[in-house]
Amino acid sequence: MIYELLKRHEANFFIMYASSKDPNFYYAVGMKLPDPAFYAVGEDGTEMLVVHEMERRRAERESRVKEIVSLSDVGFYEKVKELGVEKALAETYAEILKEHRARKILVPKEFPSFLYKHLSEHFEIEIVSNPFSKLRSVKKSWEIKEIKKASEIALNALKFFLEIVKRKREIEELRKRVELFVYEKGGLAEDTIISSGRRSADPHFVGEGIVEKHVIFDIFPKVRASGYHSDFTRTVIIERDEEIVEMLRACIEAKNEAIKIIREGIEAKEVHDKVCDVLEDYGYKTIRQKAKEGFIHSTGHGVGLEVHEEPKIFNSEDKLRSGMVFTVEPGLYYERIGGVRVEDLVLVKKNGCEVLTRFDDYVEVVP
Amino acid sequence: MIYELLKRHEANFFIMYASSKDPNFYYAVGMKLPDPAFYAVGEDGTEMLVVHEMERRRAERESRVKEIVSLSDVGFYEKVKELGVEKALAETYAEILKEHRARKILVPKEFPSFLYKHLSEHFEIEIVSNPFSKLRSVKKSWEIKEIKKASEIALNALKFFLEIVKRKREIEELRKRVELFVYEKGGLAEDTIISSGRRSADPHFVGEGIVEKHVIFDIFPKVRASGYHSDFTRTVIIERDEEIVEMLRACIEAKNEAIKIIREGIEAKEVHDKVCDVLEDYGYKTIRQKAKEGFIHSTGHGVGLEVHEEPKIFNSEDKLRSGMVFTVEPGLYYERIGGVRVEDLVLVKKNGCEVLTRFDDYVEVVP
Repeated sequence: MIYELLKRHEANFFIMYASSKDPNFYYAVGMKLPDPAFYAVGEDGTEMLVVHEMERRRAERESRVKEIVSLSDVGFYEKVKELGVEKALAETYAEILKEHRARKILVPKEFPSFLYKHLSEHFEIEIVSNPFSKLRSVKKSWEIKEIKKASEIALNALKFFLEIVKRKREIEELRKRVELFVYEKGGLAEDTIISSGRRSADPHFVGEGIVEKHVIFDIFPKVRASGYHSDFTRTVIIERDEEIVEMLRACIEAKNEAIKIIREGIEAKEVHDKVCDVLEDYGYKTIRQKAKEGFIHSTGHGVGLEVHEEPKIFNSEDKLRSGMVFTVEPGLYYERIGGVRVEDLVLVKKNGCEVLTRFDDYVEVVP
Repeated sequence: MIYELLKRHEANFFIMYASSKDPNFYYAVGMKLPDPAFYAVGEDGTEMLVVHEMERRRAERESRVKEIVSLSDVGFYEKVKELGVEKALAETYAEILKEHRARKILVPKEFPSFLYKHLSEHFEIEIVSNPFSKLRSVKKSWEIKEIKKASEIALNALKFFLEIVKRKREIEELRKRVELFVYEKGGLAEDTIISSGRRSADPHFVGEGIVEKHVIFDIFPKVRASGYHSDFTRTVIIERDEEIVEMLRACIEAKNEAIKIIREGIEAKEVHDKVCDVLEDYGYKTIRQKAKEGFIHSTGHGVGLEVHEEPKIFNSEDKLRSGMVFTVEPGLYYERIGGVRVEDLVLVKKNGCEVLTRFDDYVEVVP
């Protein structure tokens, strides 16, 4: 795919400069690097990783990139005194690329400006969407296995929550216990949303205070060993409120109708439109109508090494592909009432999709 | 400090585009934002945060920035269809900045290239070191409190490790138990280095297999509630080996001699040179001599919201300031033998420094 991209843009190299905290970089090099390093893949078949000398041996052993170059082998440390770190890095990388006869280079949107500027003096540079974001959007079977593990943890975390919320109502305490439970299962959940009352009208409000009549439980744990996430939400009814139950019903129907049409080949937009159709039929306003209350976010997003990644399930005409994993998460939000949301994680298949977070849609706790 | 920076560069605005995963952005806006947003501070006293409509209310409540602008209030969503997301973002931000009569703008080194390029069509842009990196390097008293909590957790984790390593030798199992211990104490430790044998010659090798004659225990937990880290290392002797014990002795002396001279006003370089002096006196080679074995990394780095942040304790003539928190971590690494390292976290004061990780330097476990 990257070779095609290079050909299409008539470019010689695609490069990245990042640490392994950047999931695209981590995916490309296949090892943890706490400090930024340089990755280059060329139309001539070159694929190299340039690291500090102290990371060389480890990179040779751990990285999936075969050609490891140490900065000390390419004269970087001699350049630093004269040029300073940044210019020395840029000049070093430029020399390497020139040795490979690079003239035109592709960089990802998030490529740091300081290098973009320096390298622009040597090469024609074009900014592109990171091809690794797209590569990562279609999961390999071992990645799906990890996402399934994370989903299992998420489901069990909700079961655990449903038990303890019968006796406890302090949200901070509930979150603490749920996240410890997840950790003990080999997962890691941070900023788990347990939001209740009117402030749950803000989709990313993590929640605080006391559980009131309903609670949004939105958990997106990763498997610690692999770094792959799940993402799963249920709205739990504690005390029936007609308005909230009706909102929840609409979201459940929207989610399930959308899931029914998901299969390889349809456009992301069709899924989003289906969710909007159902919610609008119920009489709620949606983002498609530029509403500021009601359904005010996109239908979903890819999940993998990141909780938010490709594909975006929104307005786009991009076609769904087999192996994509993303959320379907209709929600309704009103400042006067609060918010509700239901969210499943699905895996796209040739003739349909698999729900990775099978759980009752309507959840009620009778304390 | 940012006003001075703007003045010095004769610029009207400093801007960032990032999510709260970027600690500089998080520090500036004081709230968690999972998706990228736009921050701008101007010489005219403007300070604003531009977010998606769905984050507006939460930003108004949670951010330390007073002026919150929603993308829907500034015509972004109308632009998207025609221009695509990226150009629409750039044009929207450009309009906002022009309303404030901006002509010259500062962006940080890590500013994404796509916005740099678009905004360059409207403004003169200069790339600078992120001023928030420097601001963050001097800790406020509440930040120091959090780092002390993290350090307490790190020290207790080592004590716990020293107990369990008497009976267990499987590194993966030891790491799992140590990290669970940390989690139960309110911390989060990932990629804790427990490395033994010859492969410990790679400073960032996390370790696997069985504990042999010595083990590097390097833990850098954060307090989950605040996100502030500690960073702390001891080399634990399991079975005395003359070469290793001698290397360790040299590192301990290098660390302690360096700590003795740390106080406000001296240069980072002086600390690094002291470490190199001691190690070279012992007959070991150092990075100052461009050695590829021996002491092959810098003396230390700042610790706070990130494990690696400003200041760098290396070749720099930057002066240490009261309130800086950084590591002092001499190590010696030989492929034939393995590595040793001792690391303390210190807080710079007017006339000295406070060690935040007080623990015996020489640690031996008799199983």
